[in-house]
Amino acid sequence: MFKKLLENIKLNPPLVHNITNYVTVNDCANIVLAAGGSPLMADDVNEVEDIVSISNSLYINVGTLNTRVIESMLKAGKKANELGLPVVLDPVGVGASKLRNESVKTLIDEIDFSVIKGNMSEIKALYTNAKNTGGVDVQEDDLVDNQNIEEAIEFVKKVAKKFNCVIAVTGAIDIVTDSEKVCLIRNGHAMMSKITGTGCMTGSVIATYCASNKDNIFAVSVMAVTVMGLSGEKAYEKIVEREEGTSSFRTYLIDTVSLMDFDTLKKYAKIEIV
Amino acid sequence: MFKKLLENIKLNPPLVHNITNYVTVNDCANIVLAAGGSPLMADDVNEVEDIVSISNSLYINVGTLNTRVIESMLKAGKKANELGLPVVLDPVGVGASKLRNESVKTLIDEIDFSVIKGNMSEIKALYTNAKNTGGVDVQEDDLVDNQNIEEAIEFVKKVAKKFNCVIAVTGAIDIVTDSEKVCLIRNGHAMMSKITGTGCMTGSVIATYCASNKDNIFAVSVMAVTVMGLSGEKAYEKIVEREEGTSSFRTYLIDTVSLMDFDTLKKYAKIEIV
Amino acid sequence: MFKKLLENIKLNPPLVHNITNYVTVNDCANIVLAAGGSPLMADDVNEVEDIVSISNSLYINVGTLNTRVIESMLKAGKKANELGLPVVLDPVGVGASKLRNESVKTLIDEIDFSVIKGNMSEIKALYTNAKNTGGVDVQEDDLVDNQNIEEAIEFVKKVAKKFNCVIAVTGAIDIVTDSEKVCLIRNGHAMMSKITGTGCMTGSVIATYCASNKDNIFAVSVMAVTVMGLSGEKAYEKIVEREEGTSSFRTYLIDTVSLMDFDTLKKYAKIEIV
Repeated sequence: MFKKLLENIKLNPPLVHNITNYVTVNDCANIVLAAGGSPLMADDVNEVEDIVSISNSLYINVGTLNTRVIESMLKAGKKANELGLPVVLDPVGVGASKLRNESVKTLIDEIDFSVIKGNMSEIKALYTNAKNTGGVDVQEDDLVDNQNIEEAIEFVKKVAKKFNCVIAVTGAIDIVTDSEKVCLIRNGHAMMSKITGTGCMTGSVIATYCASNKDNIFAVSVMAVTVMGLSGEKAYEKIVEREEGTSSFRTYLIDTVSLMDFDTLKKYAKIEIV
Repeated sequence: MFKKLLENIKLNPPLVHNITNYVTVNDCANIVLAAGGSPLMADDVNEVEDIVSISNSLYINVGTLNTRVIESMLKAGKKANELGLPVVLDPVGVGASKLRNESVKTLIDEIDFSVIKGNMSEIKALYTNAKNTGGVDVQEDDLVDNQNIEEAIEFVKKVAKKFNCVIAVTGAIDIVTDSEKVCLIRNGHAMMSKITGTGCMTGSVIATYCASNKDNIFAVSVMAVTVMGLSGEKAYEKIVEREEGTSSFRTYLIDTVSLMDFDTLKKYAKIEIV
Repeated sequence: MFKKLLENIKLNPPLVHNITNYVTVNDCANIVLAAGGSPLMADDVNEVEDIVSISNSLYINVGTLNTRVIESMLKAGKKANELGLPVVLDPVGVGASKLRNESVKTLIDEIDFSVIKGNMSEIKALYTNAKNTGGVDVQEDDLVDNQNIEEAIEFVKKVAKKFNCVIAVTGAIDIVTDSEKVCLIRNGHAMMSKITGTGCMTGSVIATYCASNKDNIFAVSVMAVTVMGLSGEKAYEKIVEREEGTSSFRTYLIDTVSLMDFDTLKKYAKIEIV
């Protein structure tokens, strides 16, 4: 199935509108290109509707939220819904501040998302709207491992049902579900948390793949998370071989996404259908 | 001639004021340094005049336009004109939104630009102020190839005459003209469109070269476009040799600009004087 | 002593709140991770207090100052002072504009900084609040070399006394002092000035090290400046060996910080206690 999904991107290279943070925005633009799309990064409230109108999907990432941009996100999201485009949300750091909690709540209330992607602490915060205290990155006790995987799956299914969309939880083991179908992905490498932007880029890849595969949102979300994890593995191999560090890792991660093909994906993907 | 132009930059390393987008701003700063200048990136309306006053050229790039920054661009541009500094415009994505069309029109009306750089769809949109629908990146049917090169040249000359400045059109074949003199540059590689920022960086290099060569704006524009294209070729050779992808390509592109010298430029430049 | 300081970071990986410029913000986030911390990059006035409250230190960098963000910096700084967190300032380009001079003056007046880091022209401008004309980068005649090192040390001690904090001056020879103790660091490489962000990243590393070593601000400032300089040396060796340029240099600089350990630091550090 991934073969067809990848071909759809090649046949119809999508325009992906990203409203994202200024920390990793360059990585997001480059990963959209690496994944086969073209990025559009406009965020002014007076042009987001025009830009959405020429796009094939929309990615909203609240990494560096500010009052000016929240309004743009809402306007863009509503327009995308109106046009039937897939909309992907990365609720970065939700739980870490009142502004984030309120903004993300508004976004969820006003926009129909196709996919919400986050780490487990973000997805929990999203669900409970409770305050966590670990900032933007994942909490130690939120890591999903084999001990609590069953419980985690049930929880994420519940979240997917509540928000009526695909939920992609990234971590040591990634969980993707549309509330009924569930996949666990065991690709990835711990070094992915030693660079900024891995999560943001995963969201951009999901948005890119969705844009050309509107009828297979669950499958492309699984594929995107797998491609990122696998690229992390390959990038890690390369820096070990070349005695390099985290910045080279980032470079090779994007490189690998740009070189990804079906055969590599098929050979190395560690996807478990639950 | 390029020998002298490159020497001027070494002898008088310029300060280049960039008011640009937050997606590729880091690449722009690094390419200014690679090209022999020092970047200044201020964009607050309350300081742009001070910053222009200590700069040797100004680069305006509307990639992520917003209301706050448009005012800064106008103020900076007028000050630069007053001081007789070269001003370079990259009208990124003009045609893609009403905001972009109106803002770029105002910039063109109020500021005297030395060079305007864009892809063919942007230069067309600039000229016709008509709406195109392909977003920030170039349209398939806007690519300049050998079939329509004569027609393209005549059009770009007309644009240069209308705006009374050098026009640099980047694409499979680059066209640079001051409305009378015309150069075609056949350097470059298709992978340059697989990373974000190639166009923005080209604008920054033009602004850097102009800053130390105010009396040779046409020649340095040709040189800048050639250096970028040639660096794309060299970067591509390197990633093939090392089995790397798009992010490594970006790294080597900037590397090559930083290592560029007259002998390399002379040996590999594919410039045709029309 | 550095052994213990490095261990403290490993034992208590800190959350480092960075309010910084949009040019080098990605480098800053990545260097915090490379140095063993986790970056938080929020800058909206409505959430900076929440974010400071979950952080272990605060880094304020005025590289691309704007009116919106100055208020956030003040609010975050005061909150950090209230909570007893280390606060590090990089007064980028102070002296280059009225806005910068006034903003930095306000920041200094309202916030107690633990460390202020800059090049010599910035530290001079900070002290005299006089206007310099060389923009963001260092002036030729401000370079500290062996000719005027005695005089420079006395001046920097005076500044440290005036602002009651550690001053770290980066240049050909780095000077770090708390007004009584003084260290000179002779690590580093000239190519560090050929990429953007070296200074900003140094500030982020200082803030990261301070966060886990609140009682040794002077020592960790010396260590941070040394680690950056040493990483510049190693990065330069690598690009010479691989025939690469400035962008690869940036990659290897961050790489080396991520791979730094006590033995390497001990072996190559060139620190002179004055």
